[in-house]
Amino acid sequence: MSELLLRDRDIEFLLYEFLDSEQLLQRPRYQEHSREIFNATLDTARAIADRFFANHYTKGDTCEPQFDGETVTLIEETRQAWNAFAEAGFLAAHGDFDEGGMQLPEVILRAAMAYINAANVGSAAYPFLTLGAANLVRSFASEALRERYLPPMMDGRYAGTMALTEPDQGSALADIRTTAVPAGDGSYRISGQKMFISGGDQSLTENIVHMVLARIEGAPAGTKGISLFLVPKMLDAEDGTLKSNDVKLAGLLHKMGYRNTTSTVLSFGENGGAVGYLVGDENRGLACMFQMMNEARIGVGSGAAVLGYRGYLNALQYAKDRPQGRHPSNRDPLSRQLPIIEHADVRRLLLMQKSYVEGGLALCFYGSALHEDCQTAETSEDREQAQLLLDLLTPIIKSWPSKYCLKANDLAIQVLGGSGYIREYPLEQLYRDNRLNPIHEGTEGIQAMDLLGRKVPAAQMAGYRLLREHILHSCQQAETQQALAPLATALSDALKQLDGVSENLMKQLMQDADRGLANASLYLDVFGRVVVSWIWLRQALIADQALEAEDSLAQEEGDFYRGKLQAARFYIEWELPEIGPQIRLLNDASPVTFDMQRDWF
Amino acid sequence: MSELLLRDRDIEFLLYEFLDSEQLLQRPRYQEHSREIFNATLDTARAIADRFFANHYTKGDTCEPQFDGETVTLIEETRQAWNAFAEAGFLAAHGDFDEGGMQLPEVILRAAMAYINAANVGSAAYPFLTLGAANLVRSFASEALRERYLPPMMDGRYAGTMALTEPDQGSALADIRTTAVPAGDGSYRISGQKMFISGGDQSLTENIVHMVLARIEGAPAGTKGISLFLVPKMLDAEDGTLKSNDVKLAGLLHKMGYRNTTSTVLSFGENGGAVGYLVGDENRGLACMFQMMNEARIGVGSGAAVLGYRGYLNALQYAKDRPQGRHPSNRDPLSRQLPIIEHADVRRLLLMQKSYVEGGLALCFYGSALHEDCQTAETSEDREQAQLLLDLLTPIIKSWPSKYCLKANDLAIQVLGGSGYIREYPLEQLYRDNRLNPIHEGTEGIQAMDLLGRKVPAAQMAGYRLLREHILHSCQQAETQQALAPLATALSDALKQLDGVSENLMKQLMQDADRGLANASLYLDVFGRVVVSWIWLRQALIADQALEAEDSLAQEEGDFYRGKLQAARFYIEWELPEIGPQIRLLNDASPVTFDMQRDWF
Repeated sequence: MSELLLRDRDIEFLLYEFLDSEQLLQRPRYQEHSREIFNATLDTARAIADRFFANHYTKGDTCEPQFDGETVTLIEETRQAWNAFAEAGFLAAHGDFDEGGMQLPEVILRAAMAYINAANVGSAAYPFLTLGAANLVRSFASEALRERYLPPMMDGRYAGTMALTEPDQGSALADIRTTAVPAGDGSYRISGQKMFISGGDQSLTENIVHMVLARIEGAPAGTKGISLFLVPKMLDAEDGTLKSNDVKLAGLLHKMGYRNTTSTVLSFGENGGAVGYLVGDENRGLACMFQMMNEARIGVGSGAAVLGYRGYLNALQYAKDRPQGRHPSNRDPLSRQLPIIEHADVRRLLLMQKSYVEGGLALCFYGSALHEDCQTAETSEDREQAQLLLDLLTPIIKSWPSKYCLKANDLAIQVLGGSGYIREYPLEQLYRDNRLNPIHEGTEGIQAMDLLGRKVPAAQMAGYRLLREHILHSCQQAETQQALAPLATALSDALKQLDGVSENLMKQLMQDADRGLANASLYLDVFGRVVVSWIWLRQALIADQALEAEDSLAQEEGDFYRGKLQAARFYIEWELPEIGPQIRLLNDASPVTFDMQRDWF
Repeated sequence: MSELLLRDRDIEFLLYEFLDSEQLLQRPRYQEHSREIFNATLDTARAIADRFFANHYTKGDTCEPQFDGETVTLIEETRQAWNAFAEAGFLAAHGDFDEGGMQLPEVILRAAMAYINAANVGSAAYPFLTLGAANLVRSFASEALRERYLPPMMDGRYAGTMALTEPDQGSALADIRTTAVPAGDGSYRISGQKMFISGGDQSLTENIVHMVLARIEGAPAGTKGISLFLVPKMLDAEDGTLKSNDVKLAGLLHKMGYRNTTSTVLSFGENGGAVGYLVGDENRGLACMFQMMNEARIGVGSGAAVLGYRGYLNALQYAKDRPQGRHPSNRDPLSRQLPIIEHADVRRLLLMQKSYVEGGLALCFYGSALHEDCQTAETSEDREQAQLLLDLLTPIIKSWPSKYCLKANDLAIQVLGGSGYIREYPLEQLYRDNRLNPIHEGTEGIQAMDLLGRKVPAAQMAGYRLLREHILHSCQQAETQQALAPLATALSDALKQLDGVSENLMKQLMQDADRGLANASLYLDVFGRVVVSWIWLRQALIADQALEAEDSLAQEEGDFYRGKLQAARFYIEWELPEIGPQIRLLNDASPVTFDMQRDWF
């Protein structure tokens, strides 16, 4: 039996019970779809994941991409995976039918991609980045560029990247130094160095479309002077073939995990300037790039969640199969050993994982549904509300699974003990892979500043207030259910505390932005715990309702819902209360870390 | 400049200010020593660490031991490191002068070894295991065995291992199945398979002394029927050379980190039985082995602490050197970038690390001092008290640094961002290496059961009550100091809570051992936070006193003590309060994880 990557029943639950994805079929864009088509899409994704991605998960790690100074080479299996993905049409998932696209709802695509990511996150990065880059071209590029670059990005001939980071600038986008000089023909000449560019070179496609942030000569300093450029690796030659643009692979970086994704240092313009095309308006590049970055942030959260999920399923199977030890009360050494899932501490480790990975994936799917609603919800009010919520929640969707589903991998290793630590089992690779997620697309610290410094205060806290209403609504629904009332009370209490501390922090920020933001990471964690408790309460509401007709449920179905209820209980009773001490520190504006001096370390 | 492994000033502080190691010179065993000799020993260790261990930290990871089906081969640098260690006399550190030993106090050896471990934990494992195995031989083996095996283990010709774990038994020692059959000549024939045996084979020494747990034919079932055997890899032939014993390397396991330490599967007795010699009494093997295991547990904690420590120093240096971004209040993109240590969140990440690694190392050194006192304290009462405390604290000393100094490595990666994730920097290897520590020598779950199920209730909680007195004594000292009074209050409050929950749990255990132990891991964490808060309060007491004469201190010295104070503040104000929600769960005997059913996952 091949390894189970995700639990199909749970994906179904998330799409059709937790979310009402069938309701999407009412929208004009999706009228030609059906639940059967959605499911067939998932079946295809699952088959491709199993056959073309899972097959080289380990090999892509041990035989990572090689750079000989001229070209970079990936293992053949990765090219086959890329091709299978492209041939199934997934690179065109976002496209309209009339441009050859699948016109697939965001959340269905996200569910399909969950299988691909779970199977092999290192190989999945290439199509994922291409999808994001294509969306950027679709949204902001001129018609000529769209016509030139979208078709090959949708059929798999070209891949895409996002090229933001530079060696001397890291997370601080204001300090981007790559320059763009108008060439007089409408194009620009790009020069500068970019670092940590995932998929920046590879041996999969005949061309790569780099979406590059650069500064047009004379542009204002800081983020207000950054523009977005499409810089292809290869240019069209007059004879219809491709010739090299002035983009050079300076070297590969060698990661702890995610090894099959090249991480590159790219030199633009060593020979006079790489040809680049402006996308969107001059000096508005950051705003454009944030479309791709926000999509990527949901992608990172989702990727983290499924790495955790696969690890959880693996540890669960191991715990059911592996006999070892007895209950503490059993002193008879001749009695049979128990499967380790019978040990209380192993159950704790598994239940924590379940609460993290199913909670994290539900959060990301909810984010994708919001993303969908931003674009296709019926009324403009619905679209605006979805946008408010999504903007607010993006830092949580990115950072919470990155932190806690990595922790799930850590706990999965612990379930297996010594076996979890060796490469003969997949757990250690999942853990190494997942460690990237709290870093890329904005570190945890960056997300924290974004949430507290921008997203919560935005529009007089309109997004915050809207989220609050949703949470209260769920609490009200749950209060009337015997099994859920204590959970509802705990969550509404926590929400009150969050209200209080948020108000406090808004005042602190007005007085002293530096001190007010100093403990932003604590706030991010508190906020995440409240949001995920809500996500769990919503799952529990559905489970509780389903169990009302318990007698008519198959045993397995009943167990599924009972598991959801217990995981909700666990998260809200064990994990949510940790906000207590965190909120006290935030309310006291604890100066301990802020006052620490460089020379005291 | 070579990388700083540990901070010498802090080692000095721990040995001579936090602990009063100079007072050891009063004891008869150490009268020929002096503080100068101790320091010279540390200098030697530091030099060996830098020259012979740190030099191949990366290479030992990338060029891990290879097994060709017959023999296993390590890189040449590891043999040089082994030889340098042996030639410096460290393998004989525990031995008496008259047997050619260094007669070195435990805590000085631990400090010396901290440098070696920080430099290269994968290569350090060989001498460490040999030291432990030699101590076991010294304590329990017959005079003939001691004479035969101790000298070559002290001069580096033979190495040692501990061989407990078997493929079908894991942590459950009661189920050991390896058998021992009396051969009629006083020796035994050993048959069975052992797994995860570190250093079980290597290319460093001419012989390996395996300390093997096995069951003599007809012995009682369970832990009461386990005996300890010395099983050499090679036997003395009649011509004075060595010939193979019936011990076969079945294979190597391939770890995520710690790669330069072989992890082996060993087959004993495939050809009739390996020759083994009983060590200690029949069926008393577990009690003997626990001497080595308890030493190893302090070693694991200490190893975890120094891996965290090295990572912290590395991240600290990076944070001082790396310019990036500006304060949130500074909107001028033309102003200079700040070194990232100026960012509040980076300071938080560093201060957390400092509190974990300096707290963890202090805890381990304190454990070593207790270990010393068990053997050489002047009065029998002192020796007994030290033993009570050490027994109680061993699960904390093993597990707390393993958990939190691994977390320190995680935070260090976060300080470096993308650079922390790539193999071009040492952080990711430290993190991979350190991940072993919560697993080997008893997983975290095992330590939790040991603490709550055995160590706390032992002798009517005599150890617990003694620890309590020590903590209260420190609180009383601190209460009178303005800077420390709030910390003392917080700790004595926490101690009261720990008292309450411990009493509660003792009752729960009497009623239902299985439920009573179900949340033992929470209790372990609570207990660890209280103990480490105490360790920090003690460091703060010293720092506070030193700062009373602040005007006469050099700037750097003042900063050192101010850093200690701030780290104590951080730990007690930020980390200790997390016991609140944990204690509530324990007092409520929360059944959420215990009641989770296998089929609900």
